[in-house]
Amino acid sequence: MRCEVVAIGTELLLGQIVDTNSSWIGEQLALIGIDSHFQVKVGDNFDRMAQTIRHALDRSDAVICCGGLGPTQDDITREVIAAIMGVELHRDEAIVEKIRLMFESRGRVMVDNNRRQADIPAGATPIAQMPGTAPGLICPIGDKVIYAVPGVPHEMRTMMQGTILADLQHRSGETAVIRSRVLRTWGDSESGLAQRLADRIDQLDAQGNPTLAFQASGMEGIKVRITAKAADAAAVDAIIAAEESVIRGLLSDVIFGVDEESMEVVVLNMLGARGLTMAIAEGLTGGVLAARLSEIDHRMAIFRGAAVSADFATADRPAADSAAAAAAQVRRDFGTDVGLAVVAARTHEEQPSRTVFMNLAIGEARYAQSVALPGDRNRFRNYAVINVLNFLRQTLAANSH
Amino acid sequence: MRCEVVAIGTELLLGQIVDTNSSWIGEQLALIGIDSHFQVKVGDNFDRMAQTIRHALDRSDAVICCGGLGPTQDDITREVIAAIMGVELHRDEAIVEKIRLMFESRGRVMVDNNRRQADIPAGATPIAQMPGTAPGLICPIGDKVIYAVPGVPHEMRTMMQGTILADLQHRSGETAVIRSRVLRTWGDSESGLAQRLADRIDQLDAQGNPTLAFQASGMEGIKVRITAKAADAAAVDAIIAAEESVIRGLLSDVIFGVDEESMEVVVLNMLGARGLTMAIAEGLTGGVLAARLSEIDHRMAIFRGAAVSADFATADRPAADSAAAAAAQVRRDFGTDVGLAVVAARTHEEQPSRTVFMNLAIGEARYAQSVALPGDRNRFRNYAVINVLNFLRQTLAANSH
Repeated sequence: MRCEVVAIGTELLLGQIVDTNSSWIGEQLALIGIDSHFQVKVGDNFDRMAQTIRHALDRSDAVICCGGLGPTQDDITREVIAAIMGVELHRDEAIVEKIRLMFESRGRVMVDNNRRQADIPAGATPIAQMPGTAPGLICPIGDKVIYAVPGVPHEMRTMMQGTILADLQHRSGETAVIRSRVLRTWGDSESGLAQRLADRIDQLDAQGNPTLAFQASGMEGIKVRITAKAADAAAVDAIIAAEESVIRGLLSDVIFGVDEESMEVVVLNMLGARGLTMAIAEGLTGGVLAARLSEIDHRMAIFRGAAVSADFATADRPAADSAAAAAAQVRRDFGTDVGLAVVAARTHEEQPSRTVFMNLAIGEARYAQSVALPGDRNRFRNYAVINVLNFLRQTLAANSH
Repeated sequence: MRCEVVAIGTELLLGQIVDTNSSWIGEQLALIGIDSHFQVKVGDNFDRMAQTIRHALDRSDAVICCGGLGPTQDDITREVIAAIMGVELHRDEAIVEKIRLMFESRGRVMVDNNRRQADIPAGATPIAQMPGTAPGLICPIGDKVIYAVPGVPHEMRTMMQGTILADLQHRSGETAVIRSRVLRTWGDSESGLAQRLADRIDQLDAQGNPTLAFQASGMEGIKVRITAKAADAAAVDAIIAAEESVIRGLLSDVIFGVDEESMEVVVLNMLGARGLTMAIAEGLTGGVLAARLSEIDHRMAIFRGAAVSADFATADRPAADSAAAAAAQVRRDFGTDVGLAVVAARTHEEQPSRTVFMNLAIGEARYAQSVALPGDRNRFRNYAVINVLNFLRQTLAANSH
């Protein structure tokens, strides 16, 4: 089964907005085994939209149209789909009422334009999920289908996950449940991981289910995705759990999280589970580490604060000593259980690689590590942040405090 | 003249990489007055690539193919274009030599696969700029043209700016020089700006050159773009400069920067010009302000450091007092000329809007401002950061220290 994605909006072609919706949809389709061979961006123009959607429908079984469902005169996806279906639009009063209530609950008055959003091609079905004022649509055309979803990412995702992915899977005749889990790694290369998993991949290739795939994700590390298929949810979850335990046996030292867990989520959970609070000292990284930690721990209950200072990196003494002093200092100043410092030796020139010194004070215990990192200034900073988080993670894992 | 963009790579369809190249190219084409009606993503598949590029060439005058020029067997853009041109590939030994030297200079040895990158369709011209190992191509087909550029963004951009945009402009018969300048604003709505500029826009609509356009850019504010056309660069620059001074007369209070100048660049320049150093105290924003300042001032010569602490927001005393005390404290602790604090009253529940207290200590002078901001946690933090930067900018502009 093939499904094409058409992203609608002149602002996409002009580069005023980057089309991230199509990428996300493509990823979701791949996960349920549906091919997406083409993704097209087209402006808010009746003829070009009609031409694009018709062309997509010729070569695919389903088309997802994203955008052009708003209340303004530019928003003509409804009209274009009705023309392709060869039907008229009719106003769905139940949807008018939904929109009116939505405005009322926000203390605003619905204007006439918003009624247009309730105009539905005859024969189309509104999608049950409607997080905004734009209803999504399922529009059957013979044995094919056009879906229309809003361009607002969270509205589109709600409708995809609530209705469209299941409807596509149903239409594809696929009754199996397909699920996947991502194991997130840091500390080995893609070829290194492939080598460590080579025998297992050969075994899985022979048996066909589950499958493993790698995805290099830059500063987020390398993801190993387990995808499995089975008759029901319980069976597929059992296959994934069994495979996860095999992979963990082979890669336990580099796996730090699962699915959407970032490194900062993981370390904050580890600290929280032990009842530890933490303060940090940032020389080199200038506040990036604090920003990442406080984005997760936004009440700053575990991550209590940071000292960011140009003076942690001085030419006066070795950077390793600066890091040790800073870790102890912030732990005292903020009255926390843990003090963590990241400092680089001050240089007077750009260098191809620089050494980062990390120091960790937990109670009376002290841990230090240093690492030489490549990259321009910004890559270097971000590499330093992920390395210091990983240093904290590994140290906590190896020691009980 | 119409130019279509074809982004090539299965990883784009699978959502492993978001296609930002097409957006950037679309923006550049619009700036030189060339229409881009469609942008298509297609996987690394010979037939589907050929079908997509042929279709694009039927309905447009030029096609820019982005990606598929690498050294692996997946990279078949060269072969597909040769087939469309109806010619053979031949190996360009001058390019082989360039690639070999590039490897040599990095201390690596060129492998055989890399020679494939020097295979050029007969009749095609390599693009002079070649920042990586993949040559770009200009491939004439009758009076139309296919360009091939690598998918690596900085390589693609170098070739677009060095060759392709000028070649397209030449082909379009447009001899005029088109340039634009962006005036960046913060503090008024799009409709508010439109109202203040209404008379000027009417005048410009009547005369046709230059033009004004608005672009809402979220946390980056609203951009007002002046675009002008003239016979030569000096004339176009004069038109833009004259228009900029008219617009500044109407919007002087909200314009903070030009083109790529962010708010932090502007305030760091203002501080630097006055020889002032600064330290900051972040309650609410958890290090985000420090990260943004140190990303620009990466040696931390002007922005000397930050104290990030959960305790700046306490229930014990009014948040305005906390902000004043924190601004004075960091100024003393870091020994800087300026101390800046941003603090929110501590709350025990999520609220639809919260008040942010900002305080600025410059020498003996003290300035305070507060603002109620909406949004969920992350939007709130980012709004607070841009507001505190704007508070600093406006206070510096209004006072000489």
